[in-house]
Amino acid sequence: MPTVILSGLTASFNQGRLERLLTTAWRIVAVPDESDSRILLKALGDADALIGLRWRGDWGETATRLRLIQALGAGVDAYDQNALPPGCSLCNVYEHGVPVAEYVIGVMAALTMRFGHYDRLLRSGRWDGSGRLDGETHAELAGQSVGLIGWGGIGREVARRARAFDMKVYAIRANPAGFSDSPEELRPDWQGGPDQLEELLGAVDFLIACCPLNEQTRGLLNRRKLALLRPTAYLINVARAEIIDEDALYDALRSRKIAGAALDVWYRYPSKLEERLLPASRPFHELENVLMTPHLSAWTEAMIERRWRVIAANLDALAEGRPLKNVVSPLGTRAS
Amino acid sequence: MPTVILSGLTASFNQGRLERLLTTAWRIVAVPDESDSRILLKALGDADALIGLRWRGDWGETATRLRLIQALGAGVDAYDQNALPPGCSLCNVYEHGVPVAEYVIGVMAALTMRFGHYDRLLRSGRWDGSGRLDGETHAELAGQSVGLIGWGGIGREVARRARAFDMKVYAIRANPAGFSDSPEELRPDWQGGPDQLEELLGAVDFLIACCPLNEQTRGLLNRRKLALLRPTAYLINVARAEIIDEDALYDALRSRKIAGAALDVWYRYPSKLEERLLPASRPFHELENVLMTPHLSAWTEAMIERRWRVIAANLDALAEGRPLKNVVSPLGTRAS
Repeated sequence: MPTVILSGLTASFNQGRLERLLTTAWRIVAVPDESDSRILLKALGDADALIGLRWRGDWGETATRLRLIQALGAGVDAYDQNALPPGCSLCNVYEHGVPVAEYVIGVMAALTMRFGHYDRLLRSGRWDGSGRLDGETHAELAGQSVGLIGWGGIGREVARRARAFDMKVYAIRANPAGFSDSPEELRPDWQGGPDQLEELLGAVDFLIACCPLNEQTRGLLNRRKLALLRPTAYLINVARAEIIDEDALYDALRSRKIAGAALDVWYRYPSKLEERLLPASRPFHELENVLMTPHLSAWTEAMIERRWRVIAANLDALAEGRPLKNVVSPLGTRAS
Repeated sequence: MPTVILSGLTASFNQGRLERLLTTAWRIVAVPDESDSRILLKALGDADALIGLRWRGDWGETATRLRLIQALGAGVDAYDQNALPPGCSLCNVYEHGVPVAEYVIGVMAALTMRFGHYDRLLRSGRWDGSGRLDGETHAELAGQSVGLIGWGGIGREVARRARAFDMKVYAIRANPAGFSDSPEELRPDWQGGPDQLEELLGAVDFLIACCPLNEQTRGLLNRRKLALLRPTAYLINVARAEIIDEDALYDALRSRKIAGAALDVWYRYPSKLEERLLPASRPFHELENVLMTPHLSAWTEAMIERRWRVIAANLDALAEGRPLKNVVSPLGTRAS
């Protein structure tokens, strides 16, 4: 019977779910505290697969049988792809396009209509922004433009909803040849490759970061690029914080060089839920024009169930000698 | 040259806009303080049309020439339709379906993902709800159901967007024979008349009030009806507060008989923007599960411009002897 390690708390929490979804027989070893390398390394000596939030290069020493490192999400920036054990594949999992797109459209409305601001005021009897009393107006989403950096599962789901809101969709993808030219498939109104980023930045009302964090995208939105955004533009980050330079973003928001932002991904995370930690070095929490959320956009029960169904199917495939799904790094070799 | 009165502040503010949009010649008389009946009654003696937020029965005495009372919005509950001058029509104006639908979808996301709550927590370093740290999950809008009380300009625009979110659409209209059966037009997944309200209440995840306030709808959602909603249901009111019994709504929210609400229309309004006034007798402002906004959902510059275009076109039609648009009460007769 093959063995799978559930590495870390998130994977370990879902042992019951995995048992329910598997159709092949596996020995399941939960290692909730993956920082205890002694236990993890011992378990890795017998393991055929590992499911977890990260892969560290120094874990590979004993992992001679390992054939699958299964990520728990789409982003694989926390997995050292240069140090996969020989013959071991890294696979990721998606299934979060729908809830993240719901978040993106929701925060576009919340930023535009300043829900938090007007709610606070009305609770103290102040009617700023009221149409009944000729308060200040807000903008309509209809007719505005969304710029997607990334045309994957998230970007496409955002685009479909933005279209129903009569918004114009701009999109950039790493490989622009990958845009479909089928008339049946959803296509952006404007599409381009990384070379055309600056053109997109100057043209959009909402800039959405929804691409992987990798060598090409780390620090992509630096001070110079952020300066190309319109002063009325909003930025929404549902990808990884490190795609946007922290100091430049903070300065742009504080000085209102852009109108505002909704940030769901952060520069710092605590190691556990109970730990208190501000999410960045710069005091974003002092800014009124930022909607701050704790990396929640994808976090629905339905999404978790969909992901574990894919994960269980990958273990079943491994047990039965069928090809794996969502392979990011096939048949890893040690870094030379 | 015919004469039009801009009655009250809201209409008076827009004198320049009206002048720009009119293609026929009008004498325009602004009466910013319509509570000064002496001035208004004197002006009404010469007026062919009045544009304003209300019509009071005792204003008709001198209005012998008046042929058009032009409302500034869709709701005509503030216009005494039993006391229109003889030969005078009451017309309303729509054009707000798009921004109100944007609000409705936006607050569905904000209530479901508790933007305000998690933003407050994260600003103090707390990560409740974080998917990275196995916090509590939220629901996906996809697969949930929206129940529309009203299938007019707002209801249809909400439905179109809700479909793009893969939500199921229930709708009730006063005259169910008025639902289109054309396959080209948007149709709800479930449709009914007022008799089927109770069926709808028990079936939906989000209940949207988007119907006129009239004798049939005043107090429509009373304590007994609200009790039919699911405990997980959210209520969104973008129509008029008086459609929902205030005490029953407050009690349902406070005791969590329903999950929450977004309220954009209120039981009390101040007489001017600067006046501080809580929006209800009951302390909704103490509840955490309510998103409170000050009647802002329609209030965009684009919507105002669209409305005044329709209003100017109605004055042009009157001046040129063409039929009026959006006639609510044609050729009023004094109440017998």
